[in-house]
Parts: sequence; C-alpha cells; structure tokens
Amino acid sequence: MAKWVYAFNEGSASQRDLLGGKGANLAEMTNIGMPVPPGFTITTEACNVFLNSGRELPERMWDQVLDLLKSVEDGIGRTFGGDEKPLLLSVRSGARDSMPGMMDTILNLGLNESTVKGLAADADERFAYDCYRRLVQMYSNVVLGVPGEKFEDAIDEAKRNAGVRDDNELSADALSELAREFKRIVKKETGGDFPDDPFDQLKLAITAVFDSWNTRRAKNYRAQNHIPDNLGTAVNVQSMVFGNMGSDCATGVAFTRDPSTGEKGIFGEFLINAQGEDVVSGVRTPQPIAQMANDPLVAPAYSQLLEISDRLETHYRDMQDLEFTVQNGELFMLQTRSGKRAGRAAINIAMDMVNEGMIDQNEALLRVEPQQLDQLLHPMIDPDFEPDVLATGLPASPGAATGKIVFDADRAKAMGDEGKAVILVRIETSPEDFHGMVGAQGILTARGGMTSHAAVVARGMGKPCVAGCGALQIDYAAGTVTVEGRTLSQQDDITIDGATGRVMAGKVPTIEPDLGGNLAILLEWADVARTLGVRANADTPNDARVAREFGAGGIGLCRTEHMFFEGDRLQHMREMILATTTSERRRALDSLLEMQRQDFEGIFEAMDGYPVTIRTLDPPLHEFLPHDDAEIEQLARHIGLPVEQIKNKVESLHEANPMLGHRGCRLGISFPEITEMQARAIVQAAITCRKNGIIIFPEIMIPLVADVNELARQREVVDRVACEEFEKAGVTVEYSVGTMIELPRAALTADEIAEQADFFSFGTNDLTQTAFGLSRDDAGRFLPFYVSSGIFERDPFVTIDRKGVGALITIAAEKGKATRPDLKLGICGEHGGDPDSVEFCHQSGLDYVSCSPFRVPVARLAAAQAAIRGREESTTG
Amino acid sequence: MAKWVYAFNEGSASQRDLLGGKGANLAEMTNIGMPVPPGFTITTEACNVFLNSGRELPERMWDQVLDLLKSVEDGIGRTFGGDEKPLLLSVRSGARDSMPGMMDTILNLGLNESTVKGLAADADERFAYDCYRRLVQMYSNVVLGVPGEKFEDAIDEAKRNAGVRDDNELSADALSELAREFKRIVKKETGGDFPDDPFDQLKLAITAVFDSWNTRRAKNYRAQNHIPDNLGTAVNVQSMVFGNMGSDCATGVAFTRDPSTGEKGIFGEFLINAQGEDVVSGVRTPQPIAQMANDPLVAPAYSQLLEISDRLETHYRDMQDLEFTVQNGELFMLQTRSGKRAGRAAINIAMDMVNEGMIDQNEALLRVEPQQLDQLLHPMIDPDFEPDVLATGLPASPGAATGKIVFDADRAKAMGDEGKAVILVRIETSPEDFHGMVGAQGILTARGGMTSHAAVVARGMGKPCVAGCGALQIDYAAGTVTVEGRTLSQQDDITIDGATGRVMAGKVPTIEPDLGGNLAILLEWADVARTLGVRANADTPNDARVAREFGAGGIGLCRTEHMFFEGDRLQHMREMILATTTSERRRALDSLLEMQRQDFEGIFEAMDGYPVTIRTLDPPLHEFLPHDDAEIEQLARHIGLPVEQIKNKVESLHEANPMLGHRGCRLGISFPEITEMQARAIVQAAITCRKNGIIIFPEIMIPLVADVNELARQREVVDRVACEEFEKAGVTVEYSVGTMIELPRAALTADEIAEQADFFSFGTNDLTQTAFGLSRDDAGRFLPFYVSSGIFERDPFVTIDRKGVGALITIAAEKGKATRPDLKLGICGEHGGDPDSVEFCHQSGLDYVSCSPFRVPVARLAAAQAAIRGREESTTG
Repeated sequence: MAKWVYAFNEGSASQRDLLGGKGANLAEMTNIGMPVPPGFTITTEACNVFLNSGRELPERMWDQVLDLLKSVEDGIGRTFGGDEKPLLLSVRSGARDSMPGMMDTILNLGLNESTVKGLAADADERFAYDCYRRLVQMYSNVVLGVPGEKFEDAIDEAKRNAGVRDDNELSADALSELAREFKRIVKKETGGDFPDDPFDQLKLAITAVFDSWNTRRAKNYRAQNHIPDNLGTAVNVQSMVFGNMGSDCATGVAFTRDPSTGEKGIFGEFLINAQGEDVVSGVRTPQPIAQMANDPLVAPAYSQLLEISDRLETHYRDMQDLEFTVQNGELFMLQTRSGKRAGRAAINIAMDMVNEGMIDQNEALLRVEPQQLDQLLHPMIDPDFEPDVLATGLPASPGAATGKIVFDADRAKAMGDEGKAVILVRIETSPEDFHGMVGAQGILTARGGMTSHAAVVARGMGKPCVAGCGALQIDYAAGTVTVEGRTLSQQDDITIDGATGRVMAGKVPTIEPDLGGNLAILLEWADVARTLGVRANADTPNDARVAREFGAGGIGLCRTEHMFFEGDRLQHMREMILATTTSERRRALDSLLEMQRQDFEGIFEAMDGYPVTIRTLDPPLHEFLPHDDAEIEQLARHIGLPVEQIKNKVESLHEANPMLGHRGCRLGISFPEITEMQARAIVQAAITCRKNGIIIFPEIMIPLVADVNELARQREVVDRVACEEFEKAGVTVEYSVGTMIELPRAALTADEIAEQADFFSFGTNDLTQTAFGLSRDDAGRFLPFYVSSGIFERDPFVTIDRKGVGALITIAAEKGKATRPDLKLGICGEHGGDPDSVEFCHQSGLDYVSCSPFRVPVARLAAAQAAIRGREESTTG
Repeated sequence: MAKWVYAFNEGSASQRDLLGGKGANLAEMTNIGMPVPPGFTITTEACNVFLNSGRELPERMWDQVLDLLKSVEDGIGRTFGGDEKPLLLSVRSGARDSMPGMMDTILNLGLNESTVKGLAADADERFAYDCYRRLVQMYSNVVLGVPGEKFEDAIDEAKRNAGVRDDNELSADALSELAREFKRIVKKETGGDFPDDPFDQLKLAITAVFDSWNTRRAKNYRAQNHIPDNLGTAVNVQSMVFGNMGSDCATGVAFTRDPSTGEKGIFGEFLINAQGEDVVSGVRTPQPIAQMANDPLVAPAYSQLLEISDRLETHYRDMQDLEFTVQNGELFMLQTRSGKRAGRAAINIAMDMVNEGMIDQNEALLRVEPQQLDQLLHPMIDPDFEPDVLATGLPASPGAATGKIVFDADRAKAMGDEGKAVILVRIETSPEDFHGMVGAQGILTARGGMTSHAAVVARGMGKPCVAGCGALQIDYAAGTVTVEGRTLSQQDDITIDGATGRVMAGKVPTIEPDLGGNLAILLEWADVARTLGVRANADTPNDARVAREFGAGGIGLCRTEHMFFEGDRLQHMREMILATTTSERRRALDSLLEMQRQDFEGIFEAMDGYPVTIRTLDPPLHEFLPHDDAEIEQLARHIGLPVEQIKNKVESLHEANPMLGHRGCRLGISFPEITEMQARAIVQAAITCRKNGIIIFPEIMIPLVADVNELARQREVVDRVACEEFEKAGVTVEYSVGTMIELPRAALTADEIAEQADFFSFGTNDLTQTAFGLSRDDAGRFLPFYVSSGIFERDPFVTIDRKGVGALITIAAEKGKATRPDLKLGICGEHGGDPDSVEFCHQSGLDYVSCSPFRVPVARLAAAQAAIRGREESTTG
C-alpha cells in the first residue's frame, strides 16, 4: 500500500524531495532527539496525485492521516476536536525549495465553539478565545480567500466598542464575540459557513496547501527561480505549542552565526508572550536573543537553545536558521534550515568551518555562491542606510555610485576631468558615449537590457550601471529626467546600485570593497581546485592590470575598436573611413598603427607571461561616424571635407540590421589594409616586448567568420605581415591565429574552419543573438516577459542556453578537435562571468573562459565548483 | 609507368575528367571512324603535376609526347620541323568544363624560316607565309603575352607600304617580311627571340596552356561557375588541316538542330577559303550552311557532313555542336559537343527525341535546365532587337517590362490605375511601396540583393525586377535618374529585363510567353517522375489562382501581412498598433477580421482540394507605420490622434536590428489578440467554405519560433479559437498547426518543438540570415565580392548552403521525425524555386517545396530531375 504520510520519526533530512525541506528537517530533528512538537508530513507525491487527478485525495491518504493523528494524540494526551484537553494543530506547506509564492501556515486548527471551552479550561479563557479568533481570521483569509482587511475592520470596531487601543486589551468576551463576528463575515463573503468540524478544518487546510502550489504567484516564482512545476509541495501537520500563554512563554528566530558578518555565535531575536507571526509582523519590537539569558523565566530554555544550536550546526555541518517557541518555560524547535547569508559572511563562515575541522576546502568552496562575490568587489550601499528609491532598473553592472546627473558624454568627461563625481544618464548609450562613460562614476540608461552597450561597456570597466530603467523619462532638450512624477535636473545628485538595479535620489553612503583576507585565501583554493582557465576581457593596459589583480590568467578578448574611440584616434579612424582611395586610407591607418602599437605594448607588459587574445576590428564602420548634423559639420570643418560628402558616407554606410551587416572579418576582407595595420601593430609591439625580455603569447583572433575561406584570407594577411616584420627586426615571436565562433554556420562547419585556426573562442553573445534570431538591443520589449512567464527558462544573454547555443558549442568543439586535436577552446562572451555558464564550459571541455575583469573572481570560484562537482559525480556515479 | 599522353584512338567520351571535354570527344569521334585529323591529348593529371611541382613537366611526359608525335608523322607522312612536307600542329586547351577564361588555341605550330619553305613547296607560297605570320602573331600574343595591337599596327603599316586595303591582298613577300617584323616586335617587347625550334614552340605552347589554368580570369570564371580549382586542363595536340588553301577549302560550325527553336536539321554557317578564326572574328560574313550544297567544290563534303551530323547525334543521343574544316574538298571534324540551346529549343528537342525513340521520358526531363523554363514563363526581350543597354543590375525577377519611369509608389499606382505602363524606380523598396509595385509593370532598384524586399515581392507577383543596379544615381528631389552620365526623367521610357538584369533606354519589343504545347507535356511527365510536392507562396486569391495554373499542389506560404498593406486595411492596422488599450486594439482587429476572412475564403476557393499554409503575422509592427513627417501628419489627421503620439510610437517601435527584433510569434505572444483574430478569420473562412462544399486543409503556421514554449502558447490560442468557432457553427473542419523552422535554435531543438507541431516549414531565408549572421538587406556591400572571389561557393540566398543551413535542415528533420514520425516537412523560403535547392530538399526527404507561383514549373522539373537522378544513383550505386 502506498505510503502518503510520514510521522516525523519515520523520515530524515535526506528526504527533501518527498517530505519537502521543512518536513525533512523536522524529521531529522525529531530523530536526533530535539524537542520537536509531534506531527507528521503528507508527501509531495500525495500533492501531485491530488493535483493531477482533478483534486481527488489519494486513496487511503486520509486514513493514514487519521492513524498518525491518533499517535500524536496518544503521545501527548490530548484529543483533536475533544471537548477536554483539545489538541490544536498547525498546518504548514513545505516544498523541496523554499517558496514565498505559496501558502505558508495556518495555526490553531481544531478549535470551535465547543473545543475552545476545553482549551479555556485547560489554560486561560482570554488566551483560548484569542486563539479561536486567530484561527477564524487566518483560516478564512488563507484557505477561504476572504480579504484580510474585513477582519482588521472588525477588530478596529471591537476596540472602539471596548474603548481600548491594543488588541491584547480586548477581554475574553470581546474576543469570543469577535470570533462570531468573523464567522458572520465569512458567511457574507463566501456564502458558506466557517467549518466548525475540526476534521473538516484539517482536510480543507491540507487541500488548500496542495492547491497553493498552482497559484499564479507560485508559478511565477518557480518560473523566475527555475524550479520545476512537477515537484509538488508537502504538508506538515504538527501539534501546536504556544509562545503566547504567559510571561514564561516566548517565540523567536535565530541563526547559529551572524548572517551578515559570519561571526560565530547565536544571533537572533525573540519576543516574550507572543506567537511567531508577531515577530514577523513588526507590531512589537523583538529583543536581541542574548537578552533571554537575563530573564529567569526563559533563561533555562535559552541555555538549552544554545546547546541545540551547536548540535544542529555540527549535525548539519552548516550555519542554521532556527525557529523556536518556549511554552511555559519549555523549549520547542519548530524549524531548522541552512541559513541564508551575505557574501562576506558566506566566505568567513566557510573559512571558519574549515579551521574548526567541520568541512574541508572543497566543501568550503561549494559553500559560497560565486554570484555573491560580486558584492564584495565593488562599493556597496551602506545596508544601515534607508535610501530614497526612485525606481528600479536592471542590475547591469554591480557597485554603487553617487554623482551629479549629466545627460551628455562630453559634459560627463569634462566634469570627470575636473574630478567631479557624475552619473551619466542616457536613454541608451552608443560607442560615441564611451569617453563620457570613462569620465562618469556610473551609468544609468532608460532603455536596453543586460547586454546592451551600456551594460557591456560598464561591466568591462567595472563601473556601476543600471540599465533599462523604463520608469525614467529623459528629456535631453529640457535637461531633466522625470520618474514617478518627480523631476530631477543636472543640479541634482543621484545614486545607483548596479547590484540591485536601484536608482536613488541624493547621495547615499557606500562601503568600500576589501579584496584581501578570507576572500583571497578562498580564491587561492579555487585556483587549486579548478581545471578551467580564467582570462579577462580587457581593452587597455589599465584594464589588463586590473584583470591581473583579480587573478586573470591572460586576456581572452582585447577589443581593438575601443582603442579607436579615444581622443585623437577617433579623428584618424574617421579619416580612414572617409578615405576615397586606398592610399588615403593607408595614410590614416599609419597614424593609427603607431597608437595601436603603444596600446599593445602596454597590454603585453601588464600580461607578462600570459597569453593575450587580440580581436581584429569588429564593429560596422558607421559606428565611428557622427550622426547628428552639428557633429557632422564640426567633423567637416576639422577634416576639411564638404558636409555633403560626410553625410553621403554616413547615409551609404547605414544598415538595416547592423548586427548582421558589414562588420567583423567582412571589413578585413573588404579592406585588407585594416587587418594589415592591426597585425603590424601587434607584431611590432610583440617584437619590442620580446626585446625587452617580456614573455608574450599574442593570439590574433578574426571575428565573425562564417566560412573557412574568410579565415584563410585573413590569416594570409596576418602571416604575411608577421613574416615581414620578423625579417625586418631579425626577431621571431611565436604567435597564433584563431577565430571567434559566433555564428551558427561557423559552429556547424568547425571541422573545416579548424584547418585554418589555432584556437576557437566562442563569442556567445553573437552566437546567442543568431541562434535565437534575437537582437539583444531590441529584446527589451519582450524578453523580460519571456523570462518571467517561463517561456524561456532563463535570459539566454545572462546564462548560456544549453539546448541551442550550448549544442552549437558542443558541435563546434567536437568537429574542431576532430580536425585538430590540440585546438585551444575558450569563450569570450558575456557569459564567461556567469557561474552556470562557467559550469557548462567546464563540462564541455573548454580550456578557458574570459570575462570582465571584475567577474574574474566569480569565474574562478564557479570553475572550482564545477570541477569539484564533476569529480564528486564521477566518484559517485 | 604513368601514362600522361593519350593518342586520340586510345581514349573515349567517358574520359572527360582525364582528357577534358574536347579531348574525350576527339577520341570518341576517332574511334567511331570519323575523319578527325590525328593527334593526342596530354592529361589533366599532367597539368596538375606541373602546377603543383613548381612548373616541372611530369617525368617521361615529353618522351610520351614525342612517341605519339612520331605516330602522327608516320600516319600522315609528314614530319614535324621537317624541311619537306612539314607537319603543322594545333595546340588547344580542353578542361572538363568549357572555360572561356582560359587560353584557347594556337595554330600552325612547327613553322620557321626553314619549314615554311617546305610548306610553300607543298602548297602555295602566299598561303605558307600567311600561315607563318599567323603563327608568330598568335603565338606571341597568346603564349608570350605581347599585346595584339603591336601586330595590328605592323599589318596596317605593311598594307600602307604595299598600297593595298585588305590583308589577303598582301603578297607572299610582304607576308614573309611581316613575319620578320613580328619577330622584331617580339624581341623588343619580351627581350627574347621568337622560338624557331618547332619542339621549343610545342613545349612552350603546352606549358602555356597548363599555366592558363591559373590566370585571374580563369580563376574568377571557376569561382563564378562553381568549378573546382583542382581539376586542371588537358592539352590537345593535333595535326593541322586548312580551310584556307583555296576555293575547295572551307571551315564552319554547325548544330545538328536549331538551337533557338529546336527544329530538326543541320543549322550553321561556313566560309569558303578561311580558317576557323575568320568565322568567329566577323571580318567576313559567313553563309548559311545549306549553301554548301550549291557549291560543287564542297558539296560532297557537305553530304558527308550531313551524314556525320546524323551519326554523331545518334551516337551521343543529343543535339551536337560541331566544328569542321574542308581541306581540298576533304571533310575533317575538329570538335563535337552537346550544343547549348535556348529553353524553348531544349524542350522541343527533348520531346522530338522521345518521339524519335532516341531517349526516354526520364532522359528528356534531364535534358532541360529547370532554370531555362523561367524564360518561357515571362515576356522576353525580342532577341533580334539590339537594345540600348544603360547598365546591368541583378536579375531579381524574370521577365521584360517597358514603361515610363516613376519614382514614387503613389504615382505608380495612380498611373497604373489609368492603364499606363510604368516602371517603379527606387533606391530600395519597403512594404510602404507595395501598392506602387502592384501598379507598375516592373521594378528597378539601385540597392538590395536577390532577396531584397523588391526582389522577393516582385517574384511573388511574377513581375519583372532588376535589383541592386548600383550604377543608377537616383535623385528623388530632382525626379531624375543618372546612369553613366546620362540623365533620364519621368518623361522617359525605360525597359528592364529581369532575366538578365539589363536596364535599357526606351521601349524594347518583347515576346509573350506560351505555356502550352511541349512545355505542358514535359511538366506532366515531371509530375509523374517526381516524389517531392510543389506548392506556391501566394498571399491573395489571385496569386492562388495563378499558382494553380502553374501546377502548384497547394499553398506553402500565405503571408497574411501583405493583406494588411492594401487600401483601408493599412488604416485599421495602424489603429491597431496605435491602440493604447487591449479593447481599442480589439476594436481595430475586429475590422481586420472581416477582411482577412474574405481573403481566406477566396484563397481556399482557389485551392479547392489542396492544403493551404497560412502564416500568422510576421513583420515588426513599425513596418506598418509611416516614417516621414508629412505622412505622419496625414495619419494623425485621419485617425484623430496628436502627431506627437504617433511620432512617439514610431520612435518607441524603432529597432536596432528589426530582423532580430519584435516580430514573428513574439508579436503573437505579446498581443495574443492578434493571433486570435487571425485564427478566427481562418477558421471562420474554413467553415464557410466547408459549408459550400469546398474541400480545404488549412495549416496554421507560427513564425520565428525559437523554443517549443512559444509554439505551445500560440497553439493554445489557435486551438481555443477553433474550438469556439466550431461549436458556434456546429461544423468541424480538420486543420493543423505547425511552425516555421527559421532560427538555428529551432532546428537544434526540433525534437521538443515537434511535440507541439503537426508540420515544419523551413524558412530558409531567415535560416540563412541567422546561420550566416548575414542580413540580406545589407549583404550587397560585400556578398557579390564574396561570391565572385570564391569565398562563398554560391550566393546562399539563391542556393541553399548545404554545409551550414542544410546541416540545420537535416538536424531538424531527423530530430523532428524522431519525435513525430508523421511530421510533414516543407520549405517556403526563396530557395524553393532554385533547382539545386530543390534537389537538396528531395535528398533530405522533405515532403514539399513552396516557391513563387512563377517558379512552380521550375520546381516541378527540378524535383523530377532530383528523383530521376536519385533512382539512377540507387540503381548504379
């Protein structure tokens, strides 16, 4: 016969799938002798049968409930629905994963006009009727769906009638009358009677918990948190204990260590003479838990709690989050689970536990969410400060920044140069805003997603950015930004928190990051554990230095075009684009050559001993030209060309879909002299560095290859130039030539492409865009809905889509290695800093990931975790 | 020992790869006893060894040449380099495929100051010296690279000196002196002496032919014609015969049937007393070949030619293209090959040969190039007329059209409505130009490729279109188009030929198509032979009727959005887009519902008995809104909304990459009421038709699906609406729901998608764009170079790229069928009308292709050929 219900002493912590998280831990605590009020758990399987069978309870389930209820009654000498010594029950939902979207708790089940008298006789009349009105109120709201304010209104009315101000001043009679009034409300609102039969109450509460699995809120929560829809929830039925029976009663919550700092020792709050909901609701202010020791009525229970806290932490080998109740001086444990903790605390706890001999280094590495490191590497909003939040956008690049609002890049740069703190606020950014982003403390945009220009560039710089904050109405002409009816101008300060997406008015105090201590040790351990290389995307010598500080083992992507946007260079770039003959173009390129060479020398120096992957020019040329009339006129004057000619050029370079246009290697094939210049700058810089004793491994990467022939032609140019330069210098430097795999066709023909490539670097941004046919610049109109409604499991620009993009990576890796077994494989898209994607890269046998410098620690830890999990699976599997 | 050289009697017609086309046929003719001047062929393998070894002749090749030369000498009693009865040789290149990019012919090898005297003694002094000066002239030009005009100048000088006007008035002495002068020119131009040694002449000529395989022209020709670079060319060395030794000599070319009409009987031209080059050069006007019968000196040779012509045609079982020479009354055959023929001729010849019992129906089907049918289905430029060609663009949609130049769509429509013939001339077209395209006879654009908007829409309508004619400078403001310095205005007539891309000034006479007769019979045979279905892409009842006339077995793609551009509908569409609430949107949609239903009824009626695949709304909404200020103001007045609001909407709908933006099913998911309206219109129309006894199979197709969840949600809407309508009407109509596979991710997750799809239709346009990361609207800047320089083997928008896009189709077909073995598979991209792509679809096991109505006959024939070839391969393989 199928078993649908487990007494607490029949289960264990390993049965989370069947009993839910709460039920499994109640069982575990019961079995190791903790003082847990007796009860039982109805399984997730019962829930699924119920939901899939048109709301029929599984056969024999109710009988099993009654059997176990009998045991509970026998154990504590009370009777459910009994007129004397009535047993009261709590019913709590408990899925495998904690789910705030679901129904939570119903207390005091078993009371009615008759049993309440038994309880009154047993304890205290006022207490009994308070329990009763609470049951009717909570049950009617949660199970029957009667709006909560109806009951609040009735309570206010009762207090007015009684001439009192506080709930707890109401007499037993008043409470009794209130319970009756509540039942009238139920009748009016639902058309039915409040169930007086305790068994009806129980059965309805259980099925209500089952049904709450499928509420819209629960579904949305699951969609957002990638929890499968078919798990179902368990239901925990437990005998009630009361923290509100007098001054020797209390209720509280505690962590076994400080969840903010990780400091060892119990940390929490309690309330004397209260029920759990009172702690949460904030009606009364709880006391720090250590104060329990000073109250002789609960001090013995506190001693026991300290001892239990230690035992539970040792038993679970992790910091615990506890709920307890003291009833008449006796301690009862109602819940234990792994405690959520801040990034800093996670690291400190893991390190301490290793030092305490509780866990080993690998376990410590698994205990810290890689994503949490991000907080630690950037300035944070002071958590003690209550900011004036204007709106929330996408958390595009972590860190907090404060400054004056500035709407244009030139002004941002100018003010930045003067040492003033500014936040660049734009509808969206383009490469022309680059210098303004450099000058600003942070970037805020009204449009664009997690991989919009602003987001990508800001992450690359390690600058805070909030993107796609749709609530902002920016009026460039007026120089104002309006949000929720409030209008701010360039006089005003604003603060952004790129870790949460919050946009706040005024200055907000921040806390500076600390990269040393336990974080540094943890990352060293991670480097030992991981097999996947971690490189950084860095475009300047400065970026390269930062990347190295964060532990990057080379540069996986140096985007040469960013070098062209700074100062004079843009001028030469524009001359190059506007050239009408190859010789004019060559002249402009010669000027750029000199600058690029210096950049590369600086980058090679910063990366002494490490490989540096340099990508040849990628973006379409129109990105380098001005688009508005004033700027075009200025350029025309500067460069000595007719305005019309520049306009015509801008017009002729216009593209319907620039993402799929004349860019990447297509430029180098149309204008081989550009590739030639870039190859020459790289090789000359390499030669100079080599002569200065710097160890360098330049890897020249050709972007947007769709066919091996494109790579072959570009490689021909690079090899020819390298040959020429080596001959001229009398020095040879080892280098390699490879390609981005960022188009589906490249992945599908990787066997051919590998014939010309020393390495592949997966450009997962563009590969995602092309595999999905989804422009990241335009996806903002529908992608958030796709993710929130579960059409897409995850945002594919944040986490690699394994089924589609991942399949292409796997195909390309296999085909590439078949042609060239020593082919080096890496990824250099935005995904390189996403822990889930890093795990995929590890599993796919890639050699390295490359990400923004500030994500390097995240990737190092994620890579270590992937390696440890992989080894665990191969040992157990 | 490797055999590098084959005497003509050692080879056969089947050895084209080794001996080249010309060599193999010379061998074949020799073996069946035709009068072929003796000679031998140096193999393509020898050429490849030579080219791959740094220009070393293969070991022993020269010895083999000398051996076979000896046999030739012995056979005809002449000696190469002999002072008496000298043997003269011709050297001709001959690759597997005819290649105009390569060196062709050198005649009269073996002459020098000494042997020329032997020839003079043998024949005639003037003839001998004429041969000599021709050798020096031709050899120096072709082998040594001396510019031809140097020799022409010298001839002019000689004629002036002799006081004569024609070459053939020059005396033997004058010609002798001319040969000496030519040799001085060679010395001056090349620094070396003209080779007097006949064996040097021969060896140099052979290596020059080998080298000509790798000239730029030859490489470009191969790239454009998809001929592999590693085939190499053979070299044919043959004893000379002379058609210029007197009035009993002649030379000519002939076809065994008329290459324009296919009429049976010899067809060709000849010249008395001339060499082959004289026929080609046009210096003298050749006579119709039948005239040979009237000249007693060559009449016997003519009789023999007639007999040989019959024998060759019977032997090769195909119409032959012959070259012959009559030397002193004796006929020699110099070449035979399959004759090129016009489309009409190809069909007639194939049908006649079946009637003559020479070939069977399947062979007849293989004898007609599917592409050639295109000419027959559209008006053609009268081939007898010499048009004034202004420029050449891309042959985007076949057919010839003449009309007044018109630059804007409204005017084109207005003039079209008045019955005037106009050509719509635009820089490029957009959906807003649709009504103008309907009104025009043809469309000419300056920008855009073979799959640009203009091209796609024109092909759909069966209207002539020349696209991407970059030579046009269109000035809308001035109302002029300038090309090569000539300026035309709206007063001028222009003619376009969409089959060749020619743009011509003025009116040009055209020939109307005839769809009956042999063409109809051939296509009936094709329908019997093929297994692949052929449907049409048709958006209106009229298109559907045309498609059916062309033999379409259903509609594979009905693009509902085209219905929205006509007349009032655009108005309602815009109201729908500008709606700010769902109810406003629904009101506008209700108006559209009525119109769509009528369209569908018309289409279903036209397709009685056949399936009709209808795609839900696909293009981004901004395509339906006006973009310039005047139009926006007009719309604002019309619709009663503030201009600003419309502008804001236009602005807010702007997309960086609309191809990858908010379109396809993404629209239907954002606005389910659009899908609902369309589903309702389809189902209501189906119910009405069913009630009227029309047999219909509506297939509702959801576009741009990347994930199964998108299809599932859209399918839910369609099924719900269908259910509602069936219930309301009390009638049920069978229908199916499927999806386009047009994104790489859809192909890669086809197993999942098939769970929700009754059919897949491969949208190969978008699949090509996304697989290559290549926007067809923007590819014009580099794609032509990619194709002409061989980076891409073919234009992937014209012929399916098998390696990339084809791989995705294969993956999707396999995965889809694994989930649902009865899954119906088709393609509906532009490739559906391309013969190579049709073959691929047949091989991939697809159920049908769908193409523009005017391409349906092409696809029917191509499908038949693919089936026949497939059966042949499986029989022989």
